[in-house]
Amino acid sequence: MLKLPALDPSTVEERRGSGYPEPYKSRMGDRVKRRLGQACGLTKLGVNLVTLGPGGQSALRHWHTLEDEFVYVLEGEVVLVTNAGEQTLSAGMCAGYPAGRPDGHHFINRSSHPTKYLEIGQRPEGDIAFYPDDDLMLIPTENGEISAHKDGKRY
Amino acid sequence: MLKLPALDPSTVEERRGSGYPEPYKSRMGDRVKRRLGQACGLTKLGVNLVTLGPGGQSALRHWHTLEDEFVYVLEGEVVLVTNAGEQTLSAGMCAGYPAGRPDGHHFINRSSHPTKYLEIGQRPEGDIAFYPDDDLMLIPTENGEISAHKDGKRY
Repeated sequence: MLKLPALDPSTVEERRGSGYPEPYKSRMGDRVKRRLGQACGLTKLGVNLVTLGPGGQSALRHWHTLEDEFVYVLEGEVVLVTNAGEQTLSAGMCAGYPAGRPDGHHFINRSSHPTKYLEIGQRPEGDIAFYPDDDLMLIPTENGEISAHKDGKRY
Repeated sequence: MLKLPALDPSTVEERRGSGYPEPYKSRMGDRVKRRLGQACGLTKLGVNLVTLGPGGQSALRHWHTLEDEFVYVLEGEVVLVTNAGEQTLSAGMCAGYPAGRPDGHHFINRSSHPTKYLEIGQRPEGDIAFYPDDDLMLIPTENGEISAHKDGKRY
């Protein structure tokens, strides 16, 4: 049994579901995240181990204003979608998304097997995400972000 | 052939050696790093893929004042050394080191096979590392950090 600062990811709580409103939430499919960074007491670095079932998505296609993101594929195969189109990433491949580059990205599992990957980011204050393909924007409020249509109407 | 933002780590330049003065530099052994985050254009997040030969070390045992660090073992087996002693981490295990926690840590490969892991950190300005086991300190200067003995004498 490992003790902190070491950790066996299988001992970390599984989190399902997403904070998106419908119909986006359901689109994520069978997606399970384990918050490894948080389980180690990290506050400046987010590290999630994600298991994505067939048909699932990592997120809506999006980009961040202030957060660098990095993903590393551990098992299976996943399709990366960006402005330039689609590429298939197998285990051992990775991708990095510099903060502020307006190239929306996400993973879709188009295979018939689960895929497993690490998703990593710093956690900068004031970061905003944009969703080029979907009628969703996040509005910062004193009580946290709220979801709205792009015309401002709340979900 | 993957195109950015996706990347095949095997296409990234191998970097050997370390910035430590001797006798510490040699102690790292057969250690090869590929700077994946940099290769993806990231500036706020450092991600290295490291291959560590038998007898090699990830670093001197150290801790950071401002940088959260995270490591994920991909292949083989490695020994984590901290204030509490030693633990063996196999593939799929991880560890996280919160910024400012004065618990020096490093990996030693005591096995007879190479090990492979990801090392991840943000890259905060003004971060300092301390080395509890070794006669080494880093002094920030206008021209970058310099190495000194703990009595201030330069290497």
